[in-house]
Amino acid sequence: MSLIVQKYGGTSVADLERIQNVAHRVAKTADQGNRVVVILSAMAGVTDNLIGMAKQVSEFPDKRELDVLLSTGEQTTAALLAMMLQSMKHPARSLLGFQAEVRTDCAFGNARILDIGARRIKDYLEMNTIVVVAGFQGCDPDGNITTLGRGGSDTSAVAIAASLKADICEIYTDVDGVYTTDPNICPKAKKIDKISYEEMLEMASLGAKVLQIRSVEFAKKFNVPIHVRSSFSEEEGTMVINENADMESLVVSAVTCDKNEARIVLKQVPDTPGIAAKVFTPLADEGIVVDMIIQGARSGGNNDLTFTVPQTQLKQALAIGEKVAAEIGAKEVQGDENIVKVSVIGVGMKNHSGVASKMFTTLAAENINIRLISTSEIRISCVIDAKYAELAVRALHTAFDLDGKD
Amino acid sequence: MSLIVQKYGGTSVADLERIQNVAHRVAKTADQGNRVVVILSAMAGVTDNLIGMAKQVSEFPDKRELDVLLSTGEQTTAALLAMMLQSMKHPARSLLGFQAEVRTDCAFGNARILDIGARRIKDYLEMNTIVVVAGFQGCDPDGNITTLGRGGSDTSAVAIAASLKADICEIYTDVDGVYTTDPNICPKAKKIDKISYEEMLEMASLGAKVLQIRSVEFAKKFNVPIHVRSSFSEEEGTMVINENADMESLVVSAVTCDKNEARIVLKQVPDTPGIAAKVFTPLADEGIVVDMIIQGARSGGNNDLTFTVPQTQLKQALAIGEKVAAEIGAKEVQGDENIVKVSVIGVGMKNHSGVASKMFTTLAAENINIRLISTSEIRISCVIDAKYAELAVRALHTAFDLDGKD
Repeated sequence: MSLIVQKYGGTSVADLERIQNVAHRVAKTADQGNRVVVILSAMAGVTDNLIGMAKQVSEFPDKRELDVLLSTGEQTTAALLAMMLQSMKHPARSLLGFQAEVRTDCAFGNARILDIGARRIKDYLEMNTIVVVAGFQGCDPDGNITTLGRGGSDTSAVAIAASLKADICEIYTDVDGVYTTDPNICPKAKKIDKISYEEMLEMASLGAKVLQIRSVEFAKKFNVPIHVRSSFSEEEGTMVINENADMESLVVSAVTCDKNEARIVLKQVPDTPGIAAKVFTPLADEGIVVDMIIQGARSGGNNDLTFTVPQTQLKQALAIGEKVAAEIGAKEVQGDENIVKVSVIGVGMKNHSGVASKMFTTLAAENINIRLISTSEIRISCVIDAKYAELAVRALHTAFDLDGKD
Repeated sequence: MSLIVQKYGGTSVADLERIQNVAHRVAKTADQGNRVVVILSAMAGVTDNLIGMAKQVSEFPDKRELDVLLSTGEQTTAALLAMMLQSMKHPARSLLGFQAEVRTDCAFGNARILDIGARRIKDYLEMNTIVVVAGFQGCDPDGNITTLGRGGSDTSAVAIAASLKADICEIYTDVDGVYTTDPNICPKAKKIDKISYEEMLEMASLGAKVLQIRSVEFAKKFNVPIHVRSSFSEEEGTMVINENADMESLVVSAVTCDKNEARIVLKQVPDTPGIAAKVFTPLADEGIVVDMIIQGARSGGNNDLTFTVPQTQLKQALAIGEKVAAEIGAKEVQGDENIVKVSVIGVGMKNHSGVASKMFTTLAAENINIRLISTSEIRISCVIDAKYAELAVRALHTAFDLDGKD
């Protein structure tokens, strides 16, 4: 007998028929002698509809109240699934965030889980009752409802799996696993059987939407094995687990392409000490996340300072950039949304040299100009012009031997 | 400065525009220097839609889970109103049943309020924050969500008003008060300015849908003045208060017509001791509420036993009646849905004789046959054929001097 946590995303519970499908899957898992805890998202589209309603009320809806509103989405699906399981003669109970003791900080809209009591989950499991927990929601120390941010149900699931010491956390979604790259860009993309937490973290932070990044952090910290798979098929998906021996045979595991960044260039920045702090402190103060930074030397003691920010924050960042440029005597500020960040990721890189040079050579062979470069221990990223995105991904996928047989 | 509890029903919060209207009304009350607690229903139609969804899942949806589902309706309106007030620069906070400590028994779908902690309501009021409480919902001793039954938000409002010792509980609805009778039946119906708790209780139990009966019981027990009024006008409505001197000038305050009962006749029941227990015990065991009972003597020691049950329970009651009839040797069982119960109500009756005879004479003058009669200290009810319902109501309204000038 195993203790299995299953999380079903919005497309898996999009309507009553699909919730019925989930109910059958859950019932089957229980019938096989397992104890089951289910974490649910809201029906696909519901959260966006609720946000739309709130935006009609106010351009900047009160964050505490928005969370009260949004949490109804998961409450609805949790109640419906428990009801279905009951009608199928499977004892089942829904629990909301506060009932499952999902305790968070009070950052409404983007709360972090502090700990999980889970007493009632355990009590129900003892009684052989299937527990259906509303994902995405928690409760702050004052008893206010909080939500965990976009994709937060993944984190609910992994955190609950960790607190219950579950044998596995299955994340059901509308794709059948994690791919070597986006199959919409590269038809030769392959499903990955096993991937390490570290690689998955890099992929999640580079815009792969399969798992919320925090859920992977949680899984890594508490060593929770995650199985990403489709709720529409019986196929095995991708195991996200601790790095192990057979993974290292691959130097590069995946190629990603992040289209959500924008580039800002401050032209001819005077080369004096403290300039970087003058530029980046006001950006940080406004909560703008700067990703890559490069300072290029030019003749005459003036340097161009280039960095990337999320596209959604470009306008705000440019305004700050203009102000700072005037103060420090930079010549000009340019913004560019027509860029993408392509990356190769792999734990095997740790023990292999030559990955960077292979990446640069591959891009050069396609006449693709590299505008910025950044690296981590298991990742190399290059910012290139957006028009080359697909070409670059396909070329790198082939160069690093990731192409499938078809 | 007064402490005012305002409850807005489903039609008053049916869409964002109407919730905006409510927000303005609440803000105005606060601007006049009052502390305000608002209790909200779900948007009109939402609860029925959710029940419809649950019925698609199961013919008899699990009651605990149904309450989890239904409580999202009031959660939505409470969050939206608090959001609107915030955007109007009025500090406001929503509280759900469990947060407002509305403690109930665990009769899911029809829970009774045991007590109200209201600590957080009081804390927010101290901070001059408008408190918006989701009506209709509470929390049982195990922390499960419960709902209070159809019209339960009225009871939420009055119970919270009682626990806060509020100066008044205003119940906003889509009619402008309590009428001497249904204006749809009798165009001469008048709005009542003041009515006693006792009279309101009789009216509520006779199918007048203005207030949930339990809310009136609560108001009577804790002496909470209720003001029933329209959210669409500024007119004064009806005060529901303790019986006082000027009310007694009227012998009859209202005429009601309840179309939700059905009549069952057991023909030729043997006249032996214990028969009544044999008939009514199995009905009570199945939760069927028997209202009026009459046993008519016939020649030969056989009596007809006639009683009324809610129309929704007629089928079930007939099945039990057939079984019992066979056991006790009654000749036949008849059911009849084509009846109504017309009643006259008034605290003045206590000190006046002749009300009953006037009622019977009035009906007789219209050739209306009375099938059953029941009375209380302040009410006389007659069951008549449904086709005479409107005629009887109008005739009684005139006979007891209730007609308005138009």
